[in-house]
Amino acid sequence: MPRVAICAPSTPMTRADAAIVAALAEAEFPAVELHFHPQCFESEGHFAGSDEVRLAAFLECANDPAFDAVWFARGGYGACRIAEEAVAKLDHAAQDKQYLGYSDAGYLLGALYREKIGRPVHAPMPNDIRRVGGEAAVRRALGYLNGAREGLEPSLDRHPTVAFNLITLAMLCGTRLMPRLANHVVLVEEVSEHLYAIDRLFFHLTAHLGGIAGLRLGRVSDVPENDRPFGSDAEAIARDWCARHAIAYLGDADIGHDADNKIVPFGLAGREQGQ
Amino acid sequence: MPRVAICAPSTPMTRADAAIVAALAEAEFPAVELHFHPQCFESEGHFAGSDEVRLAAFLECANDPAFDAVWFARGGYGACRIAEEAVAKLDHAAQDKQYLGYSDAGYLLGALYREKIGRPVHAPMPNDIRRVGGEAAVRRALGYLNGAREGLEPSLDRHPTVAFNLITLAMLCGTRLMPRLANHVVLVEEVSEHLYAIDRLFFHLTAHLGGIAGLRLGRVSDVPENDRPFGSDAEAIARDWCARHAIAYLGDADIGHDADNKIVPFGLAGREQGQ
Repeated sequence: MPRVAICAPSTPMTRADAAIVAALAEAEFPAVELHFHPQCFESEGHFAGSDEVRLAAFLECANDPAFDAVWFARGGYGACRIAEEAVAKLDHAAQDKQYLGYSDAGYLLGALYREKIGRPVHAPMPNDIRRVGGEAAVRRALGYLNGAREGLEPSLDRHPTVAFNLITLAMLCGTRLMPRLANHVVLVEEVSEHLYAIDRLFFHLTAHLGGIAGLRLGRVSDVPENDRPFGSDAEAIARDWCARHAIAYLGDADIGHDADNKIVPFGLAGREQGQ
Repeated sequence: MPRVAICAPSTPMTRADAAIVAALAEAEFPAVELHFHPQCFESEGHFAGSDEVRLAAFLECANDPAFDAVWFARGGYGACRIAEEAVAKLDHAAQDKQYLGYSDAGYLLGALYREKIGRPVHAPMPNDIRRVGGEAAVRRALGYLNGAREGLEPSLDRHPTVAFNLITLAMLCGTRLMPRLANHVVLVEEVSEHLYAIDRLFFHLTAHLGGIAGLRLGRVSDVPENDRPFGSDAEAIARDWCARHAIAYLGDADIGHDADNKIVPFGLAGREQGQ
């Protein structure tokens, strides 16, 4: 009976959306117990409450031995503001948990992975219920929490793997939150960025990814129109920068800011499956 | 009689704008000889010609002993794609030059400063002629090229100083182009970015600026409206992240993507003035 604590280290979700997710879980995954921390619905400026409020809620969820998993409610922006203090204040109860989310939640997933705390997992979040076809995304994460493994990203192999939003991983580089990614396959995806910004992020990111096993590109969606065409596409950009840094470009990945976003347990999926 | 070569490592400018700048220079700074490299007007996708074309033009300008300065025509995006190869192929003639520009040209200025090649200078660019009041910006750079020093950013002091666009410097961090900035005052400015993106960039940048003498914030202009207020402003963001990393926040700086953008010779302004 997996017990799952939900908190919002970035931006808030609504009580109405939480109720839909709770009802879906109850109807289809009765063994999964969802506990929405009330902080999920707080709002202060851009964020789901102040840094202190978001940090406290995360620590309550992660350090409570009654929970088996912490599920991040939504991305947006804000997790990087609390991630360093968050991992520093985790105790032994935090070790034995899964942490699920993606996009801005990647700051926490990355920091947890760096510190070898728990099992970070790139996975859909409760707020994905708002997407077209979002039930499938939420169902995929709930299924994973319930022990199913059919939602795993199909390219996962013998290599340890991580998945990140492109900007999130680019911003992590060189910070005290950045995990060591030597010999890892690194999956990245992006949304709502111009192609010149994608190119610029790859310039930065690939300079930091020496020693990885290879890179895969998830979906780069909702690219805004620029005043002129960039002259290249996201895959060509990724290939170009990987080639400049002798990083193996391994092809595409089935992740993105959409309902089809698949699950990537950080590290070895096989090891994760065996647990 | 300063002879100035103009090339475009990022995006193109028009021949009409170049003619206006040339006329202004001829009328008001007859001692300054401007040579627009025809590459300034090339176009390929997003860029002022392919990487090869932009690189070749820069090298022709920088490695020609007939020129005293290289003036970058315009920012946009693209200099990071050629900067590493560019500095590697500079010869002795490139040493004895000033390099003027800002914004995306910062990738080249940073790489030149790292390699101690020539005298990189944050300064208005020819394409600034398009701005409201842009003649004043162009005049400021021409005056500087002609030996005047009244266009210098007023806070410059005994500390070596650099000035960068915020994203540009954030993307330089950890790359083979990043200059060593220990004991420097670092000036940053930004344009057309959401405040959450400014916050995210400061998260990243301040993690890389340990050991600097302090940070000053130039103008953060044309911030797009978000779906909700961020809850803080650019100065508070800069102060917050500087405090988290024990970086001295020194106040504002008179730089930005506007006609008032002042001049910042990289390194010691006093030394530069003495030349």
